[in-house]
Amino acid sequence: MAAENIHPIFDRLLSRQEREQRLRQNARVFWLTGLSGSGKSTIAQGVERRLFEAGYFPQVLDGDNIRSGINNNLGFSLEDRQENIRRIAEVAKLYVNSGVVVLSSFISPTRAIRQQAAEIVGEVDFMEIFIDTPLEVCEARDVKGLYAKARRGEIKGFTGIDSPYEAPENPFLSIPTAEMSVEEAVEQVFEAVIRAIQWTE
Amino acid sequence: MAAENIHPIFDRLLSRQEREQRLRQNARVFWLTGLSGSGKSTIAQGVERRLFEAGYFPQVLDGDNIRSGINNNLGFSLEDRQENIRRIAEVAKLYVNSGVVVLSSFISPTRAIRQQAAEIVGEVDFMEIFIDTPLEVCEARDVKGLYAKARRGEIKGFTGIDSPYEAPENPFLSIPTAEMSVEEAVEQVFEAVIRAIQWTE
Repeated sequence: MAAENIHPIFDRLLSRQEREQRLRQNARVFWLTGLSGSGKSTIAQGVERRLFEAGYFPQVLDGDNIRSGINNNLGFSLEDRQENIRRIAEVAKLYVNSGVVVLSSFISPTRAIRQQAAEIVGEVDFMEIFIDTPLEVCEARDVKGLYAKARRGEIKGFTGIDSPYEAPENPFLSIPTAEMSVEEAVEQVFEAVIRAIQWTE
Repeated sequence: MAAENIHPIFDRLLSRQEREQRLRQNARVFWLTGLSGSGKSTIAQGVERRLFEAGYFPQVLDGDNIRSGINNNLGFSLEDRQENIRRIAEVAKLYVNSGVVVLSSFISPTRAIRQQAAEIVGEVDFMEIFIDTPLEVCEARDVKGLYAKARRGEIKGFTGIDSPYEAPENPFLSIPTAEMSVEEAVEQVFEAVIRAIQWTE
């Protein structure tokens, strides 16, 4: 093909809006933040299932598909934690530009780190959801035995034990999970999410 | 919520198959490889448009959305080039698990680096497409002026000039672009892609 033909008829790149219209949803990033054991991933997965069954097209990003993949060469130093969140936010941004609704589930303990994520994703598309489970509840639960290890000093810099968790100041949504069932938590998030993503011609 | 309720009714994670069924396509990664200026991205974007208009749900990954985002902290050392491809392959794998058809467009000059990508994506999902444009044609075209710079020694390690390009030995598809128009190249890739992604109940 000749040089002058290299950017011919395909000048109109497939846009996010065309994709959103196809999927009949406004793509957004719902950024679930909360302590280890707060129930973030369980809620994210429940909301993903509810959204899909209601006709939407969501994608959960969590430790299972991120830590084992794109972030499998990162450790737990401050620098690596920042790079961890940066890459997650960049992946979330790719998905939102593909028209997909993202439910991300990461502790993301500080306001600064969530602000960095918001800036990468874009403030308009970034919706913070605080999974507000008290430390005592998470620690009593201790599904993965991590709090016990942290208390014994076998894990250093564990959020809530010897590393701070800063609650969001003005989240899109707060879910006080201690006062409700998982099903109720999922339902509350689901209801708020569909109001935000609802497609109107 | 009580500890015993943390993994309750949502035991069935949303599967790739459910997503593919919704989008009515088999998700695959079509990995376009070829020299700088071979027309990879132009073809990928044309195929993306054709697929979308035929009812499929594709996503191009190329320098525009990857280099400026998730890979914006990588340079051009051998180590960074490998990390570049690793991250692209991991993003492609996330998309394919979301049920989306990926068209990736990166030089990816060596067999070893493409093999690494294939192993990350999974051999079954990885379809190599060789955009086979001779060096003379790419250099004569020189859309971005990069070949001229490389010839003057202002860019080091430029593929085709002072760094090797290894053609795929057994690609899913080869497109000898010098013998056809962009439209014909797009059509050939499109036809091969839809045969591979066609959904059957």
